[in-house]
Amino acid sequence: MSARPPVLVDIKFNPEGVARVLKTAFADRGSINLADPANRARDLGDVEYALLWKPDADLFQRAPNLKAIFSGGAGVDHIIGMAGLPEIPIVRFVDRSLTTRMSEWVVMQCLMHLRAQYAHDISQRQRQWAKLDAPEAAEVTVGVMGLGILGQDAVAKLKVMGFDVIGWSRSRKHIDGVETFDASELDSFLARTDILVGLLPLTAETTGFYDGGLFKKLRRDGALGRSVFINAGRGKSQVEADIVSAIREGTLGGASLDVFETEPLAADNPLWGLENVFITPHDAAVSEENALFRHVEAQIARFERGEPLQFVVDRAAGY
Amino acid sequence: MSARPPVLVDIKFNPEGVARVLKTAFADRGSINLADPANRARDLGDVEYALLWKPDADLFQRAPNLKAIFSGGAGVDHIIGMAGLPEIPIVRFVDRSLTTRMSEWVVMQCLMHLRAQYAHDISQRQRQWAKLDAPEAAEVTVGVMGLGILGQDAVAKLKVMGFDVIGWSRSRKHIDGVETFDASELDSFLARTDILVGLLPLTAETTGFYDGGLFKKLRRDGALGRSVFINAGRGKSQVEADIVSAIREGTLGGASLDVFETEPLAADNPLWGLENVFITPHDAAVSEENALFRHVEAQIARFERGEPLQFVVDRAAGY
Repeated sequence: MSARPPVLVDIKFNPEGVARVLKTAFADRGSINLADPANRARDLGDVEYALLWKPDADLFQRAPNLKAIFSGGAGVDHIIGMAGLPEIPIVRFVDRSLTTRMSEWVVMQCLMHLRAQYAHDISQRQRQWAKLDAPEAAEVTVGVMGLGILGQDAVAKLKVMGFDVIGWSRSRKHIDGVETFDASELDSFLARTDILVGLLPLTAETTGFYDGGLFKKLRRDGALGRSVFINAGRGKSQVEADIVSAIREGTLGGASLDVFETEPLAADNPLWGLENVFITPHDAAVSEENALFRHVEAQIARFERGEPLQFVVDRAAGY
Repeated sequence: MSARPPVLVDIKFNPEGVARVLKTAFADRGSINLADPANRARDLGDVEYALLWKPDADLFQRAPNLKAIFSGGAGVDHIIGMAGLPEIPIVRFVDRSLTTRMSEWVVMQCLMHLRAQYAHDISQRQRQWAKLDAPEAAEVTVGVMGLGILGQDAVAKLKVMGFDVIGWSRSRKHIDGVETFDASELDSFLARTDILVGLLPLTAETTGFYDGGLFKKLRRDGALGRSVFINAGRGKSQVEADIVSAIREGTLGGASLDVFETEPLAADNPLWGLENVFITPHDAAVSEENALFRHVEAQIARFERGEPLQFVVDRAAGY
């Protein structure tokens, strides 16, 4: 019998997948899955590690002896700000597969806008042979906002595809061969950007950040004619009414959105039917349960060997 | 009147496009277009440069004083081996922009199949929030047929995007980090391939090459469920009736086609409306004739300045 207390798991997505992977995860100590009704009243007093995605409001009261918290995704906005959040490390989920999938989506969306996939699709449905003369990637500047692990991977891959790529982050990041901008240079960054790719975490500062005023600052005389907004960060960072207006008025020439202010996106939301807007249902980079649990196992092993945890959140910054 | 003899042009593709561009190309010396019946019996004895794609069999007898030969495409197998081929430099067609645009198209099409863009598009039009669980690129093997400059650029970019990439060419090419197959290993190559990318030139061997028998040899138990056929090479390399059957029967799960047996594709062709088939009107890499003639003009200018020609074929190796 192990002396190690089980890992607490409170994940509000894919309950079947989580239950399946938990049968084999944490083999050295077991787990307590709060999604299992049998655990509703279970004493959590001895639990040391918690893997959380949108946890119960009373979780930290029930588990007062946690040593570390692991987020079930790249974002931690679902934990930061919770009542009773203890002063212990919070580790975000970083995973090669999650990063790769996000870049697949970002590069695909940028290429679909570059190569006028929306117009090609209309021609195909009308059975019309209508050649389009697209600019090449080098003529289009993609501005990536958020230069963490996801943003830097997207930047590298967009550059390989030939795009002119620039980057923005609150505090300046240095990336070889990429011009970067910091918070004070936001307007210069936007004025250079044809395709804006949002990969920002949700914080107080980024709530409602992508709004009509920002869209008006994007480059308007670039090779695509009109600028494009792509968001795979957090839906609450965008003002959807402003996206709709900007598309309808022509401030924006198109958009690709994987995240929304309220999910699932309501059937009557005008975003579904806008010209040159691609909608995906928050599946750009789904946390793969196996990878998530392997990551947490590896971090707990590091912690218990006395090594520093990786990917620890800066709580003052909120991400 | 210029003392420079005109450039001989014998190109067996797109006669309308060639004739159009020849009106302005080689402004300093003019050209002789063998596709023009008026030139059938013309004396070619003073011609120094020839731009050729599958030239007439007696061409080198008629033009014995050539100083350099320019291929109308990336491949030169249409010239190598011809009777009377003189011992002068043969320059293949290389254009950075053409290569970049082709890879944009290839990578975009591969990503759209990987990420189920067709299904996402249907959900969007139905205003349905339907998350899809796509494999990641590493789980999908893209088999690129044709490993010239276009094929190698596509291979490199597909690898950066995370795909498992293998390559096939008639004679084996060695590419760092990529498993390659030659003519004798075609079936092994196809059995490994989830997404087949065709970038082969049109030759006698490749006419009607992508047919029902070939599609049946593709991998059928891969991460995409069913294999996908992508062709941006030449339309006459594909048997379109077989593509239609293979999609309808489920041998193929999808396709992306930029080239067709007869272009423009007729409005009543069933390809336009097939499930998970993306049609583009031979605009994956546009301005082909313009870029070709600019390339030849630039190489002649280098040659006449006494600088070495670029992209000269290694005749011993045959490419």
